[in-house]
Amino acid sequence: MIDVHAKKDNRGIAINKVGITDLDWPIYLSKNNRSIAKINILTNLTETQKGIHMSRLVEVLYPLSKKILSKKTIADLLISLRQQIGCSEIFFDLNFNFIKEKKSPKSGKKSYLSYDCFIKAKLVGEKVSINLGVKVPIFLLCPCSLAISKSAAHNQRARVTLLVTPKRKDWFDDLINLVEKNGSHELFSILKRKDEKYVIDEAVKKAKFVEDVVRDIAQWLKKRKYKAFIVEAKSFESIHNHNALASITYNEKFFN
Amino acid sequence: MIDVHAKKDNRGIAINKVGITDLDWPIYLSKNNRSIAKINILTNLTETQKGIHMSRLVEVLYPLSKKILSKKTIADLLISLRQQIGCSEIFFDLNFNFIKEKKSPKSGKKSYLSYDCFIKAKLVGEKVSINLGVKVPIFLLCPCSLAISKSAAHNQRARVTLLVTPKRKDWFDDLINLVEKNGSHELFSILKRKDEKYVIDEAVKKAKFVEDVVRDIAQWLKKRKYKAFIVEAKSFESIHNHNALASITYNEKFFN
Amino acid sequence: MIDVHAKKDNRGIAINKVGITDLDWPIYLSKNNRSIAKINILTNLTETQKGIHMSRLVEVLYPLSKKILSKKTIADLLISLRQQIGCSEIFFDLNFNFIKEKKSPKSGKKSYLSYDCFIKAKLVGEKVSINLGVKVPIFLLCPCSLAISKSAAHNQRARVTLLVTPKRKDWFDDLINLVEKNGSHELFSILKRKDEKYVIDEAVKKAKFVEDVVRDIAQWLKKRKYKAFIVEAKSFESIHNHNALASITYNEKFFN
Amino acid sequence: MIDVHAKKDNRGIAINKVGITDLDWPIYLSKNNRSIAKINILTNLTETQKGIHMSRLVEVLYPLSKKILSKKTIADLLISLRQQIGCSEIFFDLNFNFIKEKKSPKSGKKSYLSYDCFIKAKLVGEKVSINLGVKVPIFLLCPCSLAISKSAAHNQRARVTLLVTPKRKDWFDDLINLVEKNGSHELFSILKRKDEKYVIDEAVKKAKFVEDVVRDIAQWLKKRKYKAFIVEAKSFESIHNHNALASITYNEKFFN
Repeated sequence: MIDVHAKKDNRGIAINKVGITDLDWPIYLSKNNRSIAKINILTNLTETQKGIHMSRLVEVLYPLSKKILSKKTIADLLISLRQQIGCSEIFFDLNFNFIKEKKSPKSGKKSYLSYDCFIKAKLVGEKVSINLGVKVPIFLLCPCSLAISKSAAHNQRARVTLLVTPKRKDWFDDLINLVEKNGSHELFSILKRKDEKYVIDEAVKKAKFVEDVVRDIAQWLKKRKYKAFIVEAKSFESIHNHNALASITYNEKFFN
Repeated sequence: MIDVHAKKDNRGIAINKVGITDLDWPIYLSKNNRSIAKINILTNLTETQKGIHMSRLVEVLYPLSKKILSKKTIADLLISLRQQIGCSEIFFDLNFNFIKEKKSPKSGKKSYLSYDCFIKAKLVGEKVSINLGVKVPIFLLCPCSLAISKSAAHNQRARVTLLVTPKRKDWFDDLINLVEKNGSHELFSILKRKDEKYVIDEAVKKAKFVEDVVRDIAQWLKKRKYKAFIVEAKSFESIHNHNALASITYNEKFFN
Repeated sequence: MIDVHAKKDNRGIAINKVGITDLDWPIYLSKNNRSIAKINILTNLTETQKGIHMSRLVEVLYPLSKKILSKKTIADLLISLRQQIGCSEIFFDLNFNFIKEKKSPKSGKKSYLSYDCFIKAKLVGEKVSINLGVKVPIFLLCPCSLAISKSAAHNQRARVTLLVTPKRKDWFDDLINLVEKNGSHELFSILKRKDEKYVIDEAVKKAKFVEDVVRDIAQWLKKRKYKAFIVEAKSFESIHNHNALASITYNEKFFN
Repeated sequence: MIDVHAKKDNRGIAINKVGITDLDWPIYLSKNNRSIAKINILTNLTETQKGIHMSRLVEVLYPLSKKILSKKTIADLLISLRQQIGCSEIFFDLNFNFIKEKKSPKSGKKSYLSYDCFIKAKLVGEKVSINLGVKVPIFLLCPCSLAISKSAAHNQRARVTLLVTPKRKDWFDDLINLVEKNGSHELFSILKRKDEKYVIDEAVKKAKFVEDVVRDIAQWLKKRKYKAFIVEAKSFESIHNHNALASITYNEKFFN
């Protein structure tokens, strides 16, 4: 059977990234904790080869779904992919939900919150790099509005996206906790009235702009010598139909 | 050339709706006010015909883009469609943006706000029905939170979706105005500090649940003898990562 | 502490549906098979009560996440919700991913496919009703194009949405299998060249319009005396930038 | 009235980008050709200032909606923004629809196609840069499938995203035409049967992988000495539920 992909290409143009995207795939975050990831697997292609065999990318991925996801299993996958595809670069992205059980601050009611998490991993030359990301919803109360209004201040749900080159022990819950400490308050799926009163009263003491959120997180990461990060806060303004955004990028080249 | 669609079908099963969806198409809301609509055109199909000629739906639509959109031009289109397709039912939906210029309440700064608007029209038997819908973002401040907290109340952007069988003169701006009067406050794209203070202080006087928003709008419509409506308010809760929703449906059968 | 929701309302207007939407929540499809659902829980509200206590909806939901999802556990939840909320109607919707392992037809390569599944359940009066839905991607090859072109036919990914009042033993895999048998072919995440050749050659023998897909599924369900269903096929046309759609509704009132 | 944004910040951390996003705003592509853009306006913030006055960004934008969009009017806006905000960097992004009228290839039937277009403009130091982007849907027919199957080949809708540092006279229609020439075929909103036959037969002669599409476009741009571009082709595979992607980046730093 003819193999068109294996033919020679004579346009003299290499391709930076080629592969499959938006593949839904089961992963295990721990033994009984399955999630479903949306996955991209991309490689590079030299000037002379016409196309890649995309089915091989999925074949190499298949065993991953049996293992517990960790930096180690991802590094192993990147190395397997490169060996079996025969390319010099591999780019591997996963997006999935991470569930955290929480207790409301006063009444102690239990509930869950789900976070969009992502991994941006690559193997270029001999270097594996695995970066971790989280998208964390928080409560944000405006310090300017609080200062000028008599009886209230505009506040809203905001979302912080944090991508870091992690330290050895960092995992998604560490990043989520870091972000949640740096909003006006963290969110909960259950709040009884006494919880709700507590959250609002605490948030008033921690009124913040999006600028404050990204600066506080950046300051924390820089103090601890993180090599690279991108932190972005987007606030779904309650008094506007547009959003407010602030972002700080530190050593962006680590993420390309 | 063979015409497979025109063949006889012998499964004995009629099709309720068949046609094209998600077609982007230019429309004129007034002479110099062009917008781009996402359009669905669907018809019914009797038991015996194998398929419809979908290209004819677009052919009949083509002249619409030259005319100014009104209840009259839509009714004309429905009648043309039925004649040229030869079916007994036509369903025609449009979704598009409607821009309104606004002045901020204290400083008088001008800006624009965009509203998702929609039309649900149909021709069944001899009866044309044209229903108008709007999705209006508003500001909502929680009366419970205001009553229990010392210094603030949670508030957020909310979105009200209103679909009505309109009275003769009703158009999108009428529906948008109705919704905007019934939030804790309307939104603006520019608010200087004195505007922002004004909006918050006014909203505190009009603290509302989603339940209140839909009841107030339903009450207004019922008093004026509107034949049918659906009103839904969804609040993007600032203290939660989920949303709160209330909806009232009156004579829903008009919209099926 | 003041309870604003419990106050009397004097507008004389009942609310059809009120509650929370877009809540992300863990569910178990089997013992080790966790998924994350997006959940709506809505109730009705009589004319005289001002608002509902939304936190109670989540409190009653909390134990669900420990149990394996079944028609029985959903019915139990509906009854608990009604007892603890004190309303006459409960509407409970879940949306989640369902993973199926597949083997490619010729080379036997294993891979996964994910399906968007949904449950629409309600308790009205003494009647519990639980309807099951699936969204299944399929391959669709156009019979008209095949008849008129020399060497190929346009084909594309399509998506079939099927909602049924299920028979006693029906579960999501049954509905997915029913849809997959009725496309031009089912999809796979891995196809080696010999698989790909097989899929195309088989699809040519089963060229279908969207009209054919919904008729064949409707015919199968009617023969087996299903009480109610909605089946819709949407084809992401390769030769257009819009989509083609056909839908058949049978006893729609079961789903309102 | 207190101005919290104008206070000193003492964390010693500059912010790369801060401003407003997702603002819907009317623009004129020509005198009678209005479109609605989704706009981001972001600036940088030095270490010492606490926050930006976001309302000023919208104030400076307001006059734009009266002028016809061109590279000149965008450059003027960037300069106004920098002067009035007092920052050293401005980032201005617009996303909007662009409508093109087309004739079907054989029957000459007229219809419209809509393209998502975007502008990425910035002012850094004294340098204005304005990059133009288009997202163009095309038809793609697989050369491997064509070579191995008897009677057909899988084909599908694909979307090419092209971002370039334009030459002097380039505008959106030039970029759209470039992409449409490089698919297996361009798309139309109306195709009569003789058109459909023609499109499929032509596409068979131009069967292409996503790799071929990006290489052909890159080759064309390089021959004409374009300074920088990113071209990406994503194919919504008809035989899979995931997508295939290829991208070539040339002088990416121009777009950061």
